[in-house]
Amino acid sequence: MTQQFEAVSFQWPKGYYNDGIEIGLGQVDKLDFGYLVSEVPASAAGTYTTNQFQAAPTKLTKNTINVAHQLQAVVLNSAIANSCTGKQGEADALTEQALLADKLDIDKALVGVASTGLIGAPLPMAKIEAGMAQLTPHHGDAVTKAVMTTDKKPKHACVQLELAGKTVTITGFAKGSGMIHPKMATMLGFVTTDAAIDGELLQQTLSAEVDTTFNQITVDGDTSTNDMVVVMANGQAGTPELTAAGSADYDTFAAGLHYVLGELAKQIAADGEGATKLVECNVANAFNEKEGQQVAKAIVGSSLVKTAIFGQDPNWGRILSTVGATNAHVDTDHVTIEVNGIQMVKDSIALPFDEEQASNAMGTDKVTINVDLNAGNKTGQAWGCDLTYEYVKINATYRT
Amino acid sequence: MTQQFEAVSFQWPKGYYNDGIEIGLGQVDKLDFGYLVSEVPASAAGTYTTNQFQAAPTKLTKNTINVAHQLQAVVLNSAIANSCTGKQGEADALTEQALLADKLDIDKALVGVASTGLIGAPLPMAKIEAGMAQLTPHHGDAVTKAVMTTDKKPKHACVQLELAGKTVTITGFAKGSGMIHPKMATMLGFVTTDAAIDGELLQQTLSAEVDTTFNQITVDGDTSTNDMVVVMANGQAGTPELTAAGSADYDTFAAGLHYVLGELAKQIAADGEGATKLVECNVANAFNEKEGQQVAKAIVGSSLVKTAIFGQDPNWGRILSTVGATNAHVDTDHVTIEVNGIQMVKDSIALPFDEEQASNAMGTDKVTINVDLNAGNKTGQAWGCDLTYEYVKINATYRT
Repeated sequence: MTQQFEAVSFQWPKGYYNDGIEIGLGQVDKLDFGYLVSEVPASAAGTYTTNQFQAAPTKLTKNTINVAHQLQAVVLNSAIANSCTGKQGEADALTEQALLADKLDIDKALVGVASTGLIGAPLPMAKIEAGMAQLTPHHGDAVTKAVMTTDKKPKHACVQLELAGKTVTITGFAKGSGMIHPKMATMLGFVTTDAAIDGELLQQTLSAEVDTTFNQITVDGDTSTNDMVVVMANGQAGTPELTAAGSADYDTFAAGLHYVLGELAKQIAADGEGATKLVECNVANAFNEKEGQQVAKAIVGSSLVKTAIFGQDPNWGRILSTVGATNAHVDTDHVTIEVNGIQMVKDSIALPFDEEQASNAMGTDKVTINVDLNAGNKTGQAWGCDLTYEYVKINATYRT
Repeated sequence: MTQQFEAVSFQWPKGYYNDGIEIGLGQVDKLDFGYLVSEVPASAAGTYTTNQFQAAPTKLTKNTINVAHQLQAVVLNSAIANSCTGKQGEADALTEQALLADKLDIDKALVGVASTGLIGAPLPMAKIEAGMAQLTPHHGDAVTKAVMTTDKKPKHACVQLELAGKTVTITGFAKGSGMIHPKMATMLGFVTTDAAIDGELLQQTLSAEVDTTFNQITVDGDTSTNDMVVVMANGQAGTPELTAAGSADYDTFAAGLHYVLGELAKQIAADGEGATKLVECNVANAFNEKEGQQVAKAIVGSSLVKTAIFGQDPNWGRILSTVGATNAHVDTDHVTIEVNGIQMVKDSIALPFDEEQASNAMGTDKVTINVDLNAGNKTGQAWGCDLTYEYVKINATYRT
């Protein structure tokens, strides 16, 4: 994906509306319930957590999308994850789906369900039912706030492309891993577009682009029970339907989707629990792409690397040791490491560099680690954040 | 290994001597150089880090032992790891080996070398050479102190067994992951015994027992470049040589070795960086042993579980989510979780328990997590520690 995009200010693609309201699921003065609706049925695709304890709403949305790769609406809530809730949780997710289908007078098979928040607690269905009646169409950003738990700010990204001479918009929003309350979890992403694309092709495209974006971020290595990314494409821009990969228009669309997913992923990493810095790792000359990504993700995931970055410690030994702990191909005599532009290691041994200067150079909001494995010609990239006192505080504090 | 052993007070097996002195490699008033010697050539075995950047001393000791599974002496130092030091590092390790062989008038092929400390710095060979001349035979515990870096205390374990009517002693010592200084690493273990056992059989036995002991501890998931466990068996107890698995005496010896390795492993986990608690996870009814161990290690390795334990938070959702994030067989409808004797989850959903009482019950130096996967009849066990502010402080502090 070599195409470059400029971010445009937040706006929805044609033919979508949403709402976000407070129905008292969690903290006071916090939107906690909402919906996202396309005026017409949209092609849809999703990727879902690989955790064996998949939450009821995640499982239901996966099964719903997989039937025909179509969706018209998603109902979502924060504060309660409806995860590890057994048969009751499955019944509640089905009830939510049916309630929104009734309200919109559409087929249940066009409604997805997403929840995030406390694991193990049941959804208060009376509140959900009352809330459903209150949702009304709006075109602001309320739904992007309703999905937040303890994210410090809403996360969204928007791009506009030309397809067949017409402007197409791709807009995504996400919530990250802010688990201040015990038992909270989840990364959720939603992307809408008014481009027209076949559902199965959209699924292939999403799966490929998630591999190099959402799947390449890590905050603490834990995989939640509710993680999900859903894309809807409703065709309301009036562009011809994309039906196969390979065309210039398809490439443009895929690049735009990649851009939006990548921006959301970086925003999630930067707002990781307790994070003070976004960490980006670029691996060069890997044996293949998979290994490039594996090594990049291992580096941004290492607790020792993460604490060193918090402490602005140019501790290349931890980076090299993390590379060696993977089973990726590595020319162990010829690895190069550079942190924020300062070369620290060449041919796998230390270069003379001024440690204080290097430490000062790491005092940026984003720290970039470049590693050359000298084992091939592929690349890999991953994003994470530093490991701080605040992370421990957030996750150790019992019943805040 | 169902045999139970009682710890005996620290003592060496017959026919070993050691020394530990200060030669100025690192901090003042800290032993940093030493040797461990058997009076006669001993059967020997080792296990070594799988990190691709294996440090020079680790590589040399591995190659030395693998020739004939024999060893008579090990020279060791702390403060400097001789890791990521290129050709010079390899030459220095060879020089150390030759110096001790000369001093003891034995074959170089009977001398191992071990280093721990700063990655990337060269060994000051003049100090090493001068130090070598000062080493003299003693029977105290100086060598167990010389190997320490920032361990809070020496780690040793000792057991006595009856083999063929004679008493055999197995004594081990270790250093753990106390990496207060940047770029420090390494877990080292040394076990001596006066039992007689064939070298290759000793290797098989060590490899098997390390899998369920040293390989089942995790402090922060990082694999150092210098990790190594070495066992020497010099036969000075006068027992018949064990030459094959299967006999009652072999089983007793293997159980004793398992006990010593397990005690050392638990001491390392309990003294993990910043740790306030030892965490033990017992997995029951796994599909096979490998999966039981995998799940146990994933649980003690989860940052979210580790912070919850630091905060005495009975946060079973994080444990269940960690189980689900593995690819081990799990009956996802019938998992049971118990923490320090309090049942929290049955059939994969929350039991009603008093959270405050559960939190208080977690206020122990050792926290035990029992998980039943209901997927077979094998078990797994792993040890770790909590994740604390002190861990972040230790690893983020630049040039203390």
